[in-house]
Amino acid sequence: MLSIDLNSDLGEGFGDYRCGDDAAMLEVVTSANVACGLHAGDPEIMARAFAIARERGVAVGAHPGYPDLWGFGRRVLPFTPGEVERLVAYQVGAAAGLAAYAGHRLTYVKAHGALANLAAVEREVADAIARAVKAVDPSLSLLAIALTAQVAAGEAQGLDVHQEIFADRGYTEAGFLIPRGQPGAMITDEAEAADRVLAMVQEGAIIAASGRRLPTPIRSVCVHGDSAHAVATARAVRARLEGAGVRLAPFRA
Amino acid sequence: MLSIDLNSDLGEGFGDYRCGDDAAMLEVVTSANVACGLHAGDPEIMARAFAIARERGVAVGAHPGYPDLWGFGRRVLPFTPGEVERLVAYQVGAAAGLAAYAGHRLTYVKAHGALANLAAVEREVADAIARAVKAVDPSLSLLAIALTAQVAAGEAQGLDVHQEIFADRGYTEAGFLIPRGQPGAMITDEAEAADRVLAMVQEGAIIAASGRRLPTPIRSVCVHGDSAHAVATARAVRARLEGAGVRLAPFRA
Amino acid sequence: MLSIDLNSDLGEGFGDYRCGDDAAMLEVVTSANVACGLHAGDPEIMARAFAIARERGVAVGAHPGYPDLWGFGRRVLPFTPGEVERLVAYQVGAAAGLAAYAGHRLTYVKAHGALANLAAVEREVADAIARAVKAVDPSLSLLAIALTAQVAAGEAQGLDVHQEIFADRGYTEAGFLIPRGQPGAMITDEAEAADRVLAMVQEGAIIAASGRRLPTPIRSVCVHGDSAHAVATARAVRARLEGAGVRLAPFRA
Amino acid sequence: MLSIDLNSDLGEGFGDYRCGDDAAMLEVVTSANVACGLHAGDPEIMARAFAIARERGVAVGAHPGYPDLWGFGRRVLPFTPGEVERLVAYQVGAAAGLAAYAGHRLTYVKAHGALANLAAVEREVADAIARAVKAVDPSLSLLAIALTAQVAAGEAQGLDVHQEIFADRGYTEAGFLIPRGQPGAMITDEAEAADRVLAMVQEGAIIAASGRRLPTPIRSVCVHGDSAHAVATARAVRARLEGAGVRLAPFRA
Repeated sequence: MLSIDLNSDLGEGFGDYRCGDDAAMLEVVTSANVACGLHAGDPEIMARAFAIARERGVAVGAHPGYPDLWGFGRRVLPFTPGEVERLVAYQVGAAAGLAAYAGHRLTYVKAHGALANLAAVEREVADAIARAVKAVDPSLSLLAIALTAQVAAGEAQGLDVHQEIFADRGYTEAGFLIPRGQPGAMITDEAEAADRVLAMVQEGAIIAASGRRLPTPIRSVCVHGDSAHAVATARAVRARLEGAGVRLAPFRA
Repeated sequence: MLSIDLNSDLGEGFGDYRCGDDAAMLEVVTSANVACGLHAGDPEIMARAFAIARERGVAVGAHPGYPDLWGFGRRVLPFTPGEVERLVAYQVGAAAGLAAYAGHRLTYVKAHGALANLAAVEREVADAIARAVKAVDPSLSLLAIALTAQVAAGEAQGLDVHQEIFADRGYTEAGFLIPRGQPGAMITDEAEAADRVLAMVQEGAIIAASGRRLPTPIRSVCVHGDSAHAVATARAVRARLEGAGVRLAPFRA
Repeated sequence: MLSIDLNSDLGEGFGDYRCGDDAAMLEVVTSANVACGLHAGDPEIMARAFAIARERGVAVGAHPGYPDLWGFGRRVLPFTPGEVERLVAYQVGAAAGLAAYAGHRLTYVKAHGALANLAAVEREVADAIARAVKAVDPSLSLLAIALTAQVAAGEAQGLDVHQEIFADRGYTEAGFLIPRGQPGAMITDEAEAADRVLAMVQEGAIIAASGRRLPTPIRSVCVHGDSAHAVATARAVRARLEGAGVRLAPFRA
Repeated sequence: MLSIDLNSDLGEGFGDYRCGDDAAMLEVVTSANVACGLHAGDPEIMARAFAIARERGVAVGAHPGYPDLWGFGRRVLPFTPGEVERLVAYQVGAAAGLAAYAGHRLTYVKAHGALANLAAVEREVADAIARAVKAVDPSLSLLAIALTAQVAAGEAQGLDVHQEIFADRGYTEAGFLIPRGQPGAMITDEAEAADRVLAMVQEGAIIAASGRRLPTPIRSVCVHGDSAHAVATARAVRARLEGAGVRLAPFRA
């Protein structure tokens, strides 16, 4: 029986600011990437996300990003790979502390936003993230955007690496995300998104916009947590997968 | 043979701002309380402090404070005990992450500034800190200001608690610190500070300004890291102790 | 013909975080209190609020608060009156700069949240705010919670002071706001809120929960900008006032 | 009689962190560029700098930079020219507010660090700064690095532009600063710095490392405020200029 993980970014508010509906999303996903306080999140929000995830049996990962609340971690900031390494170690540690506080336990790390996108194409940055994860806790898995530099970097450090696809994004011929702003970048129709995810999971391949298949060991599907229709899309994807007999479970228990 | 620990606050710069001379202080002390990024410190500064401490065989602890870079953690901010608990868990985790990154390992936690002073007198706040430490890692020791609410709170959580005295502060009849601004609060003469520390360590008692002895299991002496003469005072205290045959060693290896 | 101002807090997002619907609220109010970047707001959000306000003919004021993005300016922070004075001068200046940039012009200052509440009862803090306003630009008006220490403080500095009531809050016998959390503190029914506002405006008096009238030169009505039903309440209040022949206009052009 | 201005960056501490000796530097310079709270500075530090400058008859300018306390404004952050415009308007306004509070008055604006360096070569960024200054207060002068895009940008906006040279930096054949890290970039010898400044001021020309003269209307000399020998260098430069009969005075009263 096919099994797949559904992950989403959570805990992305700050103070009184809210971003997405964490409690609703935690009813749907099997893994939660929790922001670590530098691009979003604060100890109250993080602890709450970890606690609800524990109650629901949802796996949790640290979701480190650039220290940029203003830009929500979506801008590349001028940090060297070495500085990125320390930034990631700091955030993974902080998330581990609050997960423990909430009676839960981190099982993975997934980079956020501009940091993840940069690490997808710059091996040095991918190496920095992987080294930080290994240094803080080598038993943590790395959740990486499929087919990117992050996969090789994680494996080079001996980490347990898992690859994810995106429910709402189109793919290039090379299996990369079509950049936002270009035609086909975003898949806004829930049903279409759900169909594509099911096809990719069943075929074990990323399906480019052209229809080209790129065989990939897909272990997780990312549904974004901060858009207006995020929860609805996540539910649609989950329903389609379950309807086709695919089991939903964390990529790592 | 008598043995005592010498601790100091370190890693208290931020970005380009420097505070104290970490490298010099790490030649003198046996334990370093490393700021965790919220009242001072950033990942670069923290990682460097942990790395030098490891090289020198200096024990390291997390030194969490209020999130108040502006006020350097010296103002009581309106956080509830529950919020303090999460703030401490976050910071201890972050420090543990960077200590691991630097090849070192946290062995204790010591609260900073206004948070420590409040926890000295408000049991609820002391309990919050102790619970956070226990939740994140129950094997961590708690370094507490002698004779305060922190001692009982730590013991109530089953933590390994150690008590410290201050090299440069006068004590009241009850064994508490004479508040800053009052006569006798600060001991600015290095030789006098060193003499008092030696006497308290040898007698196993806090010595009040009046001369009264309060028997206390003193395990560590705090020398402040951010004043102009901090390193000189620390050296004077260390020299006096060693000259009298007292061994300098971390309260916990 | 009776004339009254309708004011609301605006520009309270930060970066990607949104708070309230500024564009919609600017269709309803006659004065906009714009956050100044320390408890909420950033230059992008502020400039946009000022620009839309200019287009709509809405008057604008600076809305300074404590530097506390985490707490949204709703917690009293331990700043001295002198420090408050500098904090307010900084924020009023920053808002004036962005208002000018957007082709608009500040005409008043209204303190935010915990700072306003403290200034309502502590004359020293009220004096600090009034002195800051006078120092930066003595031609600015002060918009003050009716019957509070802010009124006398502003007048003592020779400022043009205007008093406001709240559409959604109940009043004590003394004409003060019933503290949140107590019965009658919040008026959640839009129609009831609109009726009360009209009555107070027409009678020129604050009406306590008991029905007691406290004659007050009411020049403005505050409708909150950050709650879910904020715009709907503002519209209801405006419609009721206009329906009764009351003219809506800024308290100061 | 030749007259020249001596300017320095001031108010660059934050909270308890100090950077340079503002009071000592204000005994030497004739214009003070005051940090505006985003890359350095806070309302307390700014107000104090403005107040001392007023007492000493030192002219004051706003010194806006990127919002980057961590990087001290020395890193180019990914803000668009439009965002830079709002960031500058915010900071100039804030500085104007605190200058007025301190009984002083801004007469100019000078961009800081990475923002100034980028505006030296990217006309779009230089235009953004010039537009912001003009929008906030067209009577403010612009103090620009000599021969850079800032000069033309300021003039295009109709601003009163003044050009500055650096006391401690070497110049390329084209009259630009030799980048830090390259040979000849920094002039560390006080006497040599003072000699070069005098020669450039007397000849009305920037003198490249090769000896080449580039005629330039030099109106101010920048002495850095945050290095260890800053005050000593400033004194040496001033003494040499005065010894040669050059009058020291603000480029604009």
